[in-house]
Amino acid sequence: MANFGGHAIPGSFFLLYGFWLTVKYVLQHYWRTNQPKGRQTLPPIFKRLDYIEGGFQIFAAFIGIMVEQFVVDGPHAHLYNDGGWIKLMNWQHSTMYLFFGISGIALILSTKFQLVPRGVGRFGLSLALFVEGFLFYYHVHNRPLLDAHIHTLLLVAVFGGSASIMLEMFIRDNIILELFGSCMFILQGSWFYQIGFVLYSPSGVEWNLTEHANVMFVTMCFCWHLAVALLLVTSTAVVVWLTVVQFSARGRDIEIGMRNTSSELTSQKALLQESDEE
Amino acid sequence: MANFGGHAIPGSFFLLYGFWLTVKYVLQHYWRTNQPKGRQTLPPIFKRLDYIEGGFQIFAAFIGIMVEQFVVDGPHAHLYNDGGWIKLMNWQHSTMYLFFGISGIALILSTKFQLVPRGVGRFGLSLALFVEGFLFYYHVHNRPLLDAHIHTLLLVAVFGGSASIMLEMFIRDNIILELFGSCMFILQGSWFYQIGFVLYSPSGVEWNLTEHANVMFVTMCFCWHLAVALLLVTSTAVVVWLTVVQFSARGRDIEIGMRNTSSELTSQKALLQESDEE
Amino acid sequence: MANFGGHAIPGSFFLLYGFWLTVKYVLQHYWRTNQPKGRQTLPPIFKRLDYIEGGFQIFAAFIGIMVEQFVVDGPHAHLYNDGGWIKLMNWQHSTMYLFFGISGIALILSTKFQLVPRGVGRFGLSLALFVEGFLFYYHVHNRPLLDAHIHTLLLVAVFGGSASIMLEMFIRDNIILELFGSCMFILQGSWFYQIGFVLYSPSGVEWNLTEHANVMFVTMCFCWHLAVALLLVTSTAVVVWLTVVQFSARGRDIEIGMRNTSSELTSQKALLQESDEE
Amino acid sequence: MANFGGHAIPGSFFLLYGFWLTVKYVLQHYWRTNQPKGRQTLPPIFKRLDYIEGGFQIFAAFIGIMVEQFVVDGPHAHLYNDGGWIKLMNWQHSTMYLFFGISGIALILSTKFQLVPRGVGRFGLSLALFVEGFLFYYHVHNRPLLDAHIHTLLLVAVFGGSASIMLEMFIRDNIILELFGSCMFILQGSWFYQIGFVLYSPSGVEWNLTEHANVMFVTMCFCWHLAVALLLVTSTAVVVWLTVVQFSARGRDIEIGMRNTSSELTSQKALLQESDEE
Repeated sequence: MANFGGHAIPGSFFLLYGFWLTVKYVLQHYWRTNQPKGRQTLPPIFKRLDYIEGGFQIFAAFIGIMVEQFVVDGPHAHLYNDGGWIKLMNWQHSTMYLFFGISGIALILSTKFQLVPRGVGRFGLSLALFVEGFLFYYHVHNRPLLDAHIHTLLLVAVFGGSASIMLEMFIRDNIILELFGSCMFILQGSWFYQIGFVLYSPSGVEWNLTEHANVMFVTMCFCWHLAVALLLVTSTAVVVWLTVVQFSARGRDIEIGMRNTSSELTSQKALLQESDEE
Repeated sequence: MANFGGHAIPGSFFLLYGFWLTVKYVLQHYWRTNQPKGRQTLPPIFKRLDYIEGGFQIFAAFIGIMVEQFVVDGPHAHLYNDGGWIKLMNWQHSTMYLFFGISGIALILSTKFQLVPRGVGRFGLSLALFVEGFLFYYHVHNRPLLDAHIHTLLLVAVFGGSASIMLEMFIRDNIILELFGSCMFILQGSWFYQIGFVLYSPSGVEWNLTEHANVMFVTMCFCWHLAVALLLVTSTAVVVWLTVVQFSARGRDIEIGMRNTSSELTSQKALLQESDEE
Repeated sequence: MANFGGHAIPGSFFLLYGFWLTVKYVLQHYWRTNQPKGRQTLPPIFKRLDYIEGGFQIFAAFIGIMVEQFVVDGPHAHLYNDGGWIKLMNWQHSTMYLFFGISGIALILSTKFQLVPRGVGRFGLSLALFVEGFLFYYHVHNRPLLDAHIHTLLLVAVFGGSASIMLEMFIRDNIILELFGSCMFILQGSWFYQIGFVLYSPSGVEWNLTEHANVMFVTMCFCWHLAVALLLVTSTAVVVWLTVVQFSARGRDIEIGMRNTSSELTSQKALLQESDEE
Repeated sequence: MANFGGHAIPGSFFLLYGFWLTVKYVLQHYWRTNQPKGRQTLPPIFKRLDYIEGGFQIFAAFIGIMVEQFVVDGPHAHLYNDGGWIKLMNWQHSTMYLFFGISGIALILSTKFQLVPRGVGRFGLSLALFVEGFLFYYHVHNRPLLDAHIHTLLLVAVFGGSASIMLEMFIRDNIILELFGSCMFILQGSWFYQIGFVLYSPSGVEWNLTEHANVMFVTMCFCWHLAVALLLVTSTAVVVWLTVVQFSARGRDIEIGMRNTSSELTSQKALLQESDEE
């Protein structure tokens, strides 16, 4: 939707999702590094997190499609009439949401059924981002210079995230790759806000959409967003990590639900020895 | 051939081939996940499937070349006369078929002779798709906007399939990658139909080939085809899987031809234990 | 050099080199598949082949540079005078040869000194192809349509070969990848001839450099060259393989220089067992 | 900064950094190849080298930002006034430096804290190069032919380095990849000098920025820089290697700080045996 809110809402969702992924991946990484070598199965809490994540994706996609279709000036599920295609922009956005919904279904299925390979969730997410970028790519033709450029920069975050998450299908449990994916979501979210501020400024400032200096500034600004996204992911990861460490030190009872008490001492020892050696 | 049938025929073949690959890969995956760790060799039935697949590719390629050359307005195996090149379009299509024929030969050779590495069949298929995309890429120059765009979208499916199948050469037995390849074939097939409906509509509707809204709709429509292809592959995979599971439960005799009875109990136990642990 | 000979000479070299690589890789593959699992070191004869290959690359590069510089209308090692740059085309060709010379040096060093990693030879060759493609890429600007197109197609073979050989640095001893690299050299060689025939036809035929049908034919013709290159590599590989097998069956004495007699029986047995199982 | 010095200073830094990386990687490679198989932890001296490297990056980035902001005609930390954006060029350069600073911080953190994965340092460096290339890419629009081309060639070195270092995240301890990364830094450094000489020649020669022959020469010249960079990296690596070997032969006492004396003999034997076999 071509107004500030129409960019702020998806922006907020992507920001939120980026933070969610950061927290999840850090928790999983903590778990992996504190396990004895032989064990690889994640405790049930991570399954529950994945159900929540998948359910949320499906829910958000559903709401998104409904809103795009049935807002006052929406197409109301009509695609074509005598005058031609109806509100193709809204239909394109609905299509994007659809693939995030599919991603949610894939995540839930791969969590629920052991037979569905683990990578299916990632594959769905990567595909959803690819479709988003693919539609945006043809979105931006025939627009003023700055408008096209600012959307092109969005594609860097979208395709960067898609490629990174696709790679995770083959290179599992690489924390750098996982957090880079989260970072791309946060970058995308904050850039949606930036687009809103530039094209539909709530304070009423109008940008000259054809001035080259504006294009140069916006390019640089994208790098600043990237730096901030890196900082946010790093801070979140540190806070989550320290919290978990403190938590598991204060009351080890909580962890009992998460891992076998019998193997705990061994794992602690193994970890200590590793840190002595290195 | 520039009519509806000329797009429906290859479309049907690609659709069919996509389903064939889905079934084959799911059967192989079932086999792999039900084997004890030590054994890796596939039972002879898969060899027979590969012979059929390769033979079919060679046969279809041969028929395709013959039809392209000897239809009424075809070049009849003449390439050049005083007036210049004769029916280059038909020659290009023949070239595409040729490489699918080569792919069939490669598949049969790699199945027949142990010395030929297993990946040769995939390599041939990937190359055939690459050549198809390569020729289409130069096909679409100097055409009306919508015509060029709708063929460009086809290239996404073609090169996507080619890249995915090329990857399978190095990452073996990854079911997600394999089904993604099948999905790209189905997408290609259904998109061929879509091209036929848009450019040579059998119901006589004429699309405005230069209207931007049509381009936007077609782009979005491609994503819908992708969603449907994903759904078809998933449904087929589920149906095949459930059929095989039920089959092997009802009468285990069939399987005797497929695997060693002595190792069967062990493998069943191993599987059960794995599912208990996870 | 802008005449038929100037394209036939490098074409012949690339054809020859493609066949050489095919033979070498098939011999190495035969050796690997006939070795017991534990042993990995190649017999000294392969070292000698690499010395010859490297020496030949250096020699050919030296001759190439000399010819480009000191032909009658060459720059005679002068780069700049009052009138501007002298014969930049010849200088660019000399630069291409230089990198093939560097590739030869890299191959000899990596063969001679154990400390130099094995992949350095491949890296050098991949880089030489990259530089060739890189220079050709800027070569083709401002030329007639067909001239630019036919050189662009050459780039497909050049960059395809460069990428494939770069991959070999990381994925060692993959016979498909190795033969694909050889195939790209043969394709490049035969395409050089094709360029010579089209642009400087020895029979005096003049092609219309701006006609679109010619571009379409040339694109298709490139695919035919690829098919022929695949056929040539396959035939060569089969002939070499059969020769080696027959050779080692008739008189095993020759092999004694190539491998340890003590381990021979074991390896034969291991191979037989493998083929029984599979 | 648009003068000779503004290109010579970053050029010198990149040259220096390229040599530093070469020396570091060769030392690490020497260490790895002289270790018994079981041990993998690097001695403390390499940690110290990484601290120095990271500290240097942060320091250089800080100085760079300060200079760009507070030179006489700089923006003095003002970004916008009534007349529009202030000195965006300086702001863009500051942004590039910022990411090299972030890279330094990442390197120090990954060296200091065992919990931070080793690859984070490489990731930061790769990202810094990517951002540099990203900003340069939009830098070069709307410039004269030669100016745009000479900066585009810089991008080859920048993105080549970024991709190579990104690969190092996944393919660890590959000396060819590591030295290729160093080579790209040296190439970038020497090419900065070349840009300075061409666009702001200190001897006052003015190049015709629109002549096609100049573009052709500059393209070829880039390849010569690459050849020289390869030569420099190779020579440096050989000199460092020979020095280390001689050093460790003359007085083995120095090494005691670096490796366990008890395991030394074993490792020497293992190495000798390996070289006998191969």
